[in-house]
Amino acid sequence: MLEDAVKSAWQYGRRFLLNGKVADYIPELSKASPVYLGVCVHTMDGKTVEYGDVDQRFTIQSISKVITLAMALELLGFDKVFSHVMMEPSGDSFNSILKLDTASNRPYNPMINAGAIDVIGLLAPEVSFETLLAFARTICMDDGIELDMDVYRSEAFTGDRNRAIGYLLKSKGVLSGDVLSTVDLYFRMCSLSVTARSLARLGQILANGGVNPVTGERLLSAQTVRTIKTLMLTCGMYDRSGELAVRVGIPSKSGVGGGIMSCVEKCMGIGIYGPSLDEKGNSIGGVYLLEHLSKEMHLHIFDSE
Amino acid sequence: MLEDAVKSAWQYGRRFLLNGKVADYIPELSKASPVYLGVCVHTMDGKTVEYGDVDQRFTIQSISKVITLAMALELLGFDKVFSHVMMEPSGDSFNSILKLDTASNRPYNPMINAGAIDVIGLLAPEVSFETLLAFARTICMDDGIELDMDVYRSEAFTGDRNRAIGYLLKSKGVLSGDVLSTVDLYFRMCSLSVTARSLARLGQILANGGVNPVTGERLLSAQTVRTIKTLMLTCGMYDRSGELAVRVGIPSKSGVGGGIMSCVEKCMGIGIYGPSLDEKGNSIGGVYLLEHLSKEMHLHIFDSE
Amino acid sequence: MLEDAVKSAWQYGRRFLLNGKVADYIPELSKASPVYLGVCVHTMDGKTVEYGDVDQRFTIQSISKVITLAMALELLGFDKVFSHVMMEPSGDSFNSILKLDTASNRPYNPMINAGAIDVIGLLAPEVSFETLLAFARTICMDDGIELDMDVYRSEAFTGDRNRAIGYLLKSKGVLSGDVLSTVDLYFRMCSLSVTARSLARLGQILANGGVNPVTGERLLSAQTVRTIKTLMLTCGMYDRSGELAVRVGIPSKSGVGGGIMSCVEKCMGIGIYGPSLDEKGNSIGGVYLLEHLSKEMHLHIFDSE
Amino acid sequence: MLEDAVKSAWQYGRRFLLNGKVADYIPELSKASPVYLGVCVHTMDGKTVEYGDVDQRFTIQSISKVITLAMALELLGFDKVFSHVMMEPSGDSFNSILKLDTASNRPYNPMINAGAIDVIGLLAPEVSFETLLAFARTICMDDGIELDMDVYRSEAFTGDRNRAIGYLLKSKGVLSGDVLSTVDLYFRMCSLSVTARSLARLGQILANGGVNPVTGERLLSAQTVRTIKTLMLTCGMYDRSGELAVRVGIPSKSGVGGGIMSCVEKCMGIGIYGPSLDEKGNSIGGVYLLEHLSKEMHLHIFDSE
Repeated sequence: MLEDAVKSAWQYGRRFLLNGKVADYIPELSKASPVYLGVCVHTMDGKTVEYGDVDQRFTIQSISKVITLAMALELLGFDKVFSHVMMEPSGDSFNSILKLDTASNRPYNPMINAGAIDVIGLLAPEVSFETLLAFARTICMDDGIELDMDVYRSEAFTGDRNRAIGYLLKSKGVLSGDVLSTVDLYFRMCSLSVTARSLARLGQILANGGVNPVTGERLLSAQTVRTIKTLMLTCGMYDRSGELAVRVGIPSKSGVGGGIMSCVEKCMGIGIYGPSLDEKGNSIGGVYLLEHLSKEMHLHIFDSE
Repeated sequence: MLEDAVKSAWQYGRRFLLNGKVADYIPELSKASPVYLGVCVHTMDGKTVEYGDVDQRFTIQSISKVITLAMALELLGFDKVFSHVMMEPSGDSFNSILKLDTASNRPYNPMINAGAIDVIGLLAPEVSFETLLAFARTICMDDGIELDMDVYRSEAFTGDRNRAIGYLLKSKGVLSGDVLSTVDLYFRMCSLSVTARSLARLGQILANGGVNPVTGERLLSAQTVRTIKTLMLTCGMYDRSGELAVRVGIPSKSGVGGGIMSCVEKCMGIGIYGPSLDEKGNSIGGVYLLEHLSKEMHLHIFDSE
Repeated sequence: MLEDAVKSAWQYGRRFLLNGKVADYIPELSKASPVYLGVCVHTMDGKTVEYGDVDQRFTIQSISKVITLAMALELLGFDKVFSHVMMEPSGDSFNSILKLDTASNRPYNPMINAGAIDVIGLLAPEVSFETLLAFARTICMDDGIELDMDVYRSEAFTGDRNRAIGYLLKSKGVLSGDVLSTVDLYFRMCSLSVTARSLARLGQILANGGVNPVTGERLLSAQTVRTIKTLMLTCGMYDRSGELAVRVGIPSKSGVGGGIMSCVEKCMGIGIYGPSLDEKGNSIGGVYLLEHLSKEMHLHIFDSE
Repeated sequence: MLEDAVKSAWQYGRRFLLNGKVADYIPELSKASPVYLGVCVHTMDGKTVEYGDVDQRFTIQSISKVITLAMALELLGFDKVFSHVMMEPSGDSFNSILKLDTASNRPYNPMINAGAIDVIGLLAPEVSFETLLAFARTICMDDGIELDMDVYRSEAFTGDRNRAIGYLLKSKGVLSGDVLSTVDLYFRMCSLSVTARSLARLGQILANGGVNPVTGERLLSAQTVRTIKTLMLTCGMYDRSGELAVRVGIPSKSGVGGGIMSCVEKCMGIGIYGPSLDEKGNSIGGVYLLEHLSKEMHLHIFDSE
């Protein structure tokens, strides 16, 4: 039955691929094929169901915001992190600087670029890129995660808006440390190569309250996981998060590389790869796939049936 | 144990009452005493626990947005309603018109004034104030709900910003019908008198998926309830919704009259009255009370302990 | 030579008529023919030069802002008026409410809708529409000015954005008095019918420091005239005022009915009618005509040749 | 009589010095004494009148925007420059990035930081700092102008907001070339040391249409001078430009170092030094001094008496 539901959702999602388009703001991303769609589900009781392009490597992009936030919460604590960044959905696009300049010195949340750069800035004095990479491999149970040098160079080449955000944060005293190297670390984290499978593992660990369901090892504290899942629900899908919270009701984080990482409380982790994006930057096939799956299997957090 | 947790949470919440202040933007509201704090919990298995000022009548204010949205969803359907109003947290204050004029013709969500006035405008040709009042009494299981004429007059007297919002919606073709009478109906709905008890009942029905737990009667469809609870979680506590989703994790809607209506999935409804407000407009005692209760009883939607 | 320059400028302006389009936000305005272009120049030494459609009546629209401001300054004084409205170019379009809601309670200047409605609100308790109409006739030396009922009804029918502005001003305590009747008076003033000739007369009086050059009667104080001319230069041509101050350098006020009223210090008044508008709302033929005339005759305030 | 008027204006301006405060956003600037006030007037017929602290060196700050704009207009031409930057007053403060990110990719005008950095970016491939310094000395007839290293270092140390602006311009494709070195050149230009006397000379040359009144040499074209004077009038006094155009009516450019450079058409140049600033960043004594002088001597562009 899980197999049927995932297959049917995957087939449903594929129908919408041509309604979206591949990210083009970074030259390297625009090379992805819009017809890819892969989904991997890891359930808590050890089952794995996969359809489509689940082996395909792609860059993690904004989903890395979950990983750096997790590390910051573990290393620096909830209070320290949230004295630098707020927890509010911004209602603006992920690379907006509007509110940063008019409403609040602190970025609205760690899921928009300003917030993520801020969090990276907090981590930078403590951890190296290598440490973060190792942490990403552990938390995604995927030793194949590497820095995709082509995408990284492309990010770095075209990342002036993120540099502007970094300097703005610095000018407000929110970010300390060197701006350019902080933003560079942000670009590196966005350029990690993952698969739908690795995202499903990360989702599974979050669904399981922070404990690796295979080894039983606690990787993240309960508070960190609760915080992250809530922020994924309210801010994880760019400025379509609110709508998808209503329609899908599964905490999810998407990236413009085409990935979506989702977790169904105490039930399953879901990883999706589909580089054809909706106008907000979410995998369009992935969003429809999730909506279908949520409906069929009653996965919405407030499903009462 | 429920009794202990509620009592302890109530005592905790009381400590913060003097850190807030009573709403003063409507003259009539400023008369409330800041030291009131009442909480009522109705559990799904029929238990009621109450502390403090639970009999005190006060005006429902923004919590009425839940009631009019519920009626609109039942009467006009999900698709009709959300072709007029979005489902995104706005990141702005409840009476902002900024995004309405710059980002989108449709209001960001039905929990801000613009969205609620829009929803009222959709309902206005179909239902009278009397029908809405009757619906409020049913859904709160409280026949004592009345129009508080003093508050209503005070709202109407000082409601020019809401009239501006109404005319702006009209100018954008989102609102049809007469602006002044639509806004007047909005003022009336904000001026309904409730108690912590009636709000707890409404919360209980939402927690129970739309079915009156006493009579077994279905009052709202599963989809309506799911939609409302999600919007309460993402947008129900003004521009502090995101933070409270993280810290408390209980779908809640507050009003500047001092009320909070909350629902813990399949578990309980909670009604709170505490007119001393935080700077965003939420009952300050109520917010701390909820946070304490959520922690003690593991009520957070993503609690994994 | 004046004749030649005006004719040549008029011919130049005509070339651009098809690059613009007639206002369509008020149904009645959209009926105007885009190929009209008329210009009338009254010099201080009594000469009149005219080309094209100078007899055609059209509605004064935003140029009425000059007339109501003049009356307010004469009647209430500089300090009273500018305690209600600022004198800064806003950088936003004429019907923007953005700054009104974020930057300042006082409208940025009396040449944008918010500012003009505010000024009308100051005048409303003192003067009737009839008084304002009589004043308009005097100051334009044109007894043929009437209320164009068709345009007025069209304005009133579609004027919800201006009503929103009115209520917003009221909510901020800037506007006192009844909003709807204030906005109605604003609509009436916008619907006065003028010709290029009457606008040239008004321009001539301003150029002459407030004294009717024919009768020698002082109609406006020197301070009122200086204030108005400066505001025309900095804010008179919508959000293209800055560019036209540089390129043309003649204090001018335009209206979406197609009129432009200009004054060359101690030299001449210019009236233009050309309903084909640029994207900011200025007569497109009129703007090019003025630029050509300014260049040929060295009329720029900072012309040094 | 000129002597009397200047003295009386200087005495009047001094009264307001304690109502303002010295700039503190750059540490080095905060060391200036708020009681300085100096004024120098050079008339076209060779007279010089001075009062107060006219020998005191201070940094030119935003007045350098006039110099770089002048050089860009001379070197690259009107059309090239204004294809990169607009000519509209922004209605926002000098270091705002709001409009840059929401209303237009091109900065609103060359008198705000974004516009000036943009202009510097255009010049950077063509001219060195030394060339600009030499040009500044020529156009101010002051060989004593030097780079104030202490202020420059202070600017560079605290200039992250300007770096953010630079990267934002770069991300929009408006600025080409290296951001950090462009912004560095901007900091250098802001750190040139001038006196009230040198500013009066610059004003005199602008008043004289671009010709050095002493040597008869043309330093700037008529078009460049006309453009600059218009922009000074509409945008030269930060977001108080509109008000001061009405009240004073003399094209002026101020800097947060306390300088004001003004020019009365075909009549005189005025240089002022008074580091106590109004809330917008203009020399508070200087503004009152100018208003008094304009009134006494009928210097307003639209004075008709």
